[in-house]
Amino acid sequence: MAIITVVGSGLMGSAMSYPARDNNHELRLVGSPLDRAIIEEASVTGMHKTLKRKLPAGIKYFQIEDLGKALDGADLLIGGVSSFGVDWFIETVLPVIPESLPVLSITKGMQNTPEGDLIPFPWLYASKSGRKNSFNAVGGPCTSYELADHDPTEVCFCGEDITLLRKFKSWFETSYYHISLSTDVMGVECAVALKNGYALAVTLAVGLSEKREGAEGKLHYNSQAALFGQSVKEMRRLLAFFGGLDENIVFGAGDLYVTVFGGRSRLMGTLLGRGLSFEKAMEQLQGITLESVVIAQRTAAAIRKQIERGKAAADDFPLLLHVDDIISRGAPVDIPWDKFESETVKP
Amino acid sequence: MAIITVVGSGLMGSAMSYPARDNNHELRLVGSPLDRAIIEEASVTGMHKTLKRKLPAGIKYFQIEDLGKALDGADLLIGGVSSFGVDWFIETVLPVIPESLPVLSITKGMQNTPEGDLIPFPWLYASKSGRKNSFNAVGGPCTSYELADHDPTEVCFCGEDITLLRKFKSWFETSYYHISLSTDVMGVECAVALKNGYALAVTLAVGLSEKREGAEGKLHYNSQAALFGQSVKEMRRLLAFFGGLDENIVFGAGDLYVTVFGGRSRLMGTLLGRGLSFEKAMEQLQGITLESVVIAQRTAAAIRKQIERGKAAADDFPLLLHVDDIISRGAPVDIPWDKFESETVKP
Repeated sequence: MAIITVVGSGLMGSAMSYPARDNNHELRLVGSPLDRAIIEEASVTGMHKTLKRKLPAGIKYFQIEDLGKALDGADLLIGGVSSFGVDWFIETVLPVIPESLPVLSITKGMQNTPEGDLIPFPWLYASKSGRKNSFNAVGGPCTSYELADHDPTEVCFCGEDITLLRKFKSWFETSYYHISLSTDVMGVECAVALKNGYALAVTLAVGLSEKREGAEGKLHYNSQAALFGQSVKEMRRLLAFFGGLDENIVFGAGDLYVTVFGGRSRLMGTLLGRGLSFEKAMEQLQGITLESVVIAQRTAAAIRKQIERGKAAADDFPLLLHVDDIISRGAPVDIPWDKFESETVKP
Repeated sequence: MAIITVVGSGLMGSAMSYPARDNNHELRLVGSPLDRAIIEEASVTGMHKTLKRKLPAGIKYFQIEDLGKALDGADLLIGGVSSFGVDWFIETVLPVIPESLPVLSITKGMQNTPEGDLIPFPWLYASKSGRKNSFNAVGGPCTSYELADHDPTEVCFCGEDITLLRKFKSWFETSYYHISLSTDVMGVECAVALKNGYALAVTLAVGLSEKREGAEGKLHYNSQAALFGQSVKEMRRLLAFFGGLDENIVFGAGDLYVTVFGGRSRLMGTLLGRGLSFEKAMEQLQGITLESVVIAQRTAAAIRKQIERGKAAADDFPLLLHVDDIISRGAPVDIPWDKFESETVKP
């Protein structure tokens, strides 16, 4: 039996308690400063405010000021913050944990550098904190609600040390939570981060067809499928460019599929496709910062830098660059369909 | 201006008239013996009975007994039959056309051989008819309704001769119908045929979640995404096994995406996922023979033969083989989630 401490009691951080508790591990759930009310209520009633579900029995709840107690004797720290909490996690949490404590991060995303590189969060944790912990991450298509409901789910744990990953797998694998393992941190994290940006791209087609039809909610699949195919093509090119293994497109494609159907990325893409400017769309979303917008901008910034340096070709990423033109430069939606066409003469 | 003759005036054969007529080509639409009523009505009113849309103006309509007239001076023959009309097309149409007339087939599917090979329809046309025509095909995600509505669509024309393919492209490319070209007939046709079988596999998750919830129409995406990712993985392995270029997964994934959301493959997968036997599900579908069922069975038969011969490994195709167990051997749905897990140690 392991002692697992989760810092960040939002949706996904809290949902990890289901497989952990089903396998009888000790689970300590620590709220970030933004999670006070969640912890307060859950510690009394067992109900999670935003997940809107009863959490598993036996969880030990902590507010952030009791982090020290929550870490005492822990075998694993799960980083449960969203991508907007990464800096807080690096500055506040990582400095106070023992270096022998491995970290498994559920945060999806990457950071771009001025040189045009992309850095997956496990690497960012290591470099920014200067700590020597083992930094690992979870990728793959998994929504917290469905994990909570024990729906069959397939994810991938990635990290440098396959032996350690196997140990994590033995702690979390259940009849509904299935875990692949990979030491290709760059590949897994790149694939699952990118899908956020491309989910926004695919859902442009939803809004575009609504605009043509003059009706909300009318779905057209030829254009969505074309954008989905182009997304897969560009994601594979990005994987290759940034040094990830091509096989990770399986997680990227699955994750893209699930992201297209849920949540705010879809709403943003739809609003843009209908013809709203990015500004107007953000107003309608009440200024919520979307991970999909951030990852599209960061990836595009990295690729534009690489194009400038002559290392990448703009023609290889027409969809990504168009999405970035829309969200970063106020361009109207005008999908470059022709640029998606290819000609292959088999050798 | 080209003269284009379409034989088979079902949904997709007829829909090809939109880009052809928008580019001002002469379009002759010939009904198969099953299409008599469609041709009768369309030639009088311009309405297509099953497409439920007005066909473009200026089409010349023919019943099958006037095939000779419809072929006179034609530059291209479009094979517009469904995969169940392929034998009729080979036996009745191909023998009466000039060998100088190129053929572009919109029929998706493949045939398996007793030796465990898969044969794309263009190759089947050549070998079974013994004719020397140039046989080409259209792959990629395209539903006829949306093509008729001028929704943005991306397809791939494949054939042996890139110069000829470029000519076809110049005839059909419009602002809404975008065409990639490939001389990898096996790869394109394999990718787009397989998606039918895998669409059935992905939609098992729809029925499974309904069964768990006890409610119809409740969608769960973790499990669909897991099956989608596994489908992409197995489709790539099948592409590699049968000698198609890996890049065609873009068409396969896009086409899988669109197929999951429409039509009878989804209904079949959903019924099976709910726990109906294949027999009961077929009853509910009133015995309609589904292309998805046929292609899954044929592909599985080919792979089983290759496994028997020691050329392929069962562990590489757990989802395909499970679907085949369900539809060909009466097995209950019991997704082998564990077999989808992988372990990658980056070299």
